Amino acid sequence: VVVGLSGGSDSVALLLLLRELSRHGGFSLLGVAHLNHQLRETAGRDETFCRDLADRLGLRVLIEEIDVLRYARAQGLSIEDAARRNRYEFLSRSADAMGADTIAVGHTQDDQAETFLLKVARGAGLTGLAGIYPRRGQVVRPLIESSRTELQSWLRAVGETWVEDESNADLGIARNRIRHVVLPELDRAAGGSTRGALARAAALAREDAQWLDELADEQYRLLVVAGPDGLEIDGPGVLRVPVVLRRRVLLRAMRQAGEQEVGLEHVEMGMAILTGTYGGADIPGARMELRRGKLVLRQQKVSK
Amino acid sequence: VVVGLSGGSDSVALLLLLRELSRHGGFSLLGVAHLNHQLRETAGRDETFCRDLADRLGLRVLIEEIDVLRYARAQGLSIEDAARRNRYEFLSRSADAMGADTIAVGHTQDDQAETFLLKVARGAGLTGLAGIYPRRGQVVRPLIESSRTELQSWLRAVGETWVEDESNADLGIARNRIRHVVLPELDRAAGGSTRGALARAAALAREDAQWLDELADEQYRLLVVAGPDGLEIDGPGVLRVPVVLRRRVLLRAMRQAGEQEVGLEHVEMGMAILTGTYGGADIPGARMELRRGKLVLRQQKVSK
Repeated sequence: VVVGLSGGSDSVALLLLLRELSRHGGFSLLGVAHLNHQLRETAGRDETFCRDLADRLGLRVLIEEIDVLRYARAQGLSIEDAARRNRYEFLSRSADAMGADTIAVGHTQDDQAETFLLKVARGAGLTGLAGIYPRRGQVVRPLIESSRTELQSWLRAVGETWVEDESNADLGIARNRIRHVVLPELDRAAGGSTRGALARAAALAREDAQWLDELADEQYRLLVVAGPDGLEIDGPGVLRVPVVLRRRVLLRAMRQAGEQEVGLEHVEMGMAILTGTYGGADIPGARMELRRGKLVLRQQKVSK
Repeated sequence: VVVGLSGGSDSVALLLLLRELSRHGGFSLLGVAHLNHQLRETAGRDETFCRDLADRLGLRVLIEEIDVLRYARAQGLSIEDAARRNRYEFLSRSADAMGADTIAVGHTQDDQAETFLLKVARGAGLTGLAGIYPRRGQVVRPLIESSRTELQSWLRAVGETWVEDESNADLGIARNRIRHVVLPELDRAAGGSTRGALARAAALAREDAQWLDELADEQYRLLVVAGPDGLEIDGPGVLRVPVVLRRRVLLRAMRQAGEQEVGLEHVEMGMAILTGTYGGADIPGARMELRRGKLVLRQQKVSK
């Protein structure tokens, strides 16, 4: 295992807990990886903190610096997305370099609750409610059911410190507004902490969604074929499938033929074409038409 | 159709819209029903407003008064639950009295978003995310995809008025805090109105949940039988069912044998007993034990 270490309380607690657990066998803690995003004035302080902590624990440490702001501009990404992409690429390279097959990161129940609320509010319907996965590919999140308050109490009790991320206080960032304003107000309305409830809702939604996705994949293999003009969906066949699976089959086919931005409104349009309400429609990256009982999705390059 | 009329903008808009629609045939508007909850000083004013509006439209009106506060105390219910129960019982009686088979009520997209958030925050996991049903039994909610702002604009445009519910401003009521504080803050975090997104999430969650419930019901009929000591669940059988259905089968059986308060934590306990982690456990209203491969749920009266 290699641990992604930001220097914040979550990842420091993760590192110390995994170090304890690794003594009982089952896995080896090979080192820590820290990415300096160069976004904050305190980036140098955070890097030094992580290096010192790894040294004290006798662990190997990999550190890289990247200009996230420049990368975000060049790729046309939000800073949050650019930082995330760079971080996971770096963690993957670090795991390879250290010979680790697993990357542990410090997401908590608080992150889960915040992500769930943010996704619901932004209209992530079909696949987005699932929230943060406890395990995905080589990334594991052992603290996903622990609360930040709980972890910080433990760190204080064992006399450990961490660095505070000043950008957490910036309410211009959506996630911070969720964390510092929306969730406390939701707690007040519900009469108690709601993070656990939100995280459980996300976990249950994820399990439901995973199983429904599996069933939809089976249907996809039966109903969708690559034709001369693009993907062809068997119209009468897909109309026989329960609507909760039908939406998922259509979404997957549309994203396959077109672009990732395909959303629920395009799926609804596809349903309307299947039942004869419309003749055809353009969706992001593709054209959709009914031809002899087949919904044909033809890829379409659009100049932006 | 009979319309439940509170006098607020939602139900006034509903009544006027249904009256317009009824001219085109397909259904008959038989009258309105208003329940005076005697909760607010303005209850008399609301009753008069509803009576006058019905008179002006030439519609039959049924009005009842009930002391909700006393009912709530007597039954040990929250005021909100007591009011809801009385209202639907009254609406059902009104429909019978007028010879209506359908009751229309004025819930909007705003109610849907508020309910979703409130349920998520209170930990309604397995079955609670579904929110408000557009149609359930004889009750229909034609405005469930319309926004309150939109309806009020329309009322102003056609020169109609409504009564304001002063209790809406009371932030001690959870729903009002969600409406007036949490949702506006969530909008600010997401950079735009989130009611539509929340309502869509609720609608998708409901469709997923309904289909999963149907599948779980099929499994329930195969796996659960009434034995001499209580409900018996076929252990090896239920362990072969996908976990998203297994939870629902267990929840239904536990609520059948015990009480409605059975929740996710009891379901998880049942799973642990099935896999041999625990020998048995008490759940609200029942005792749960593994006997010769069967999970037996014995009803247990508990003195409160």
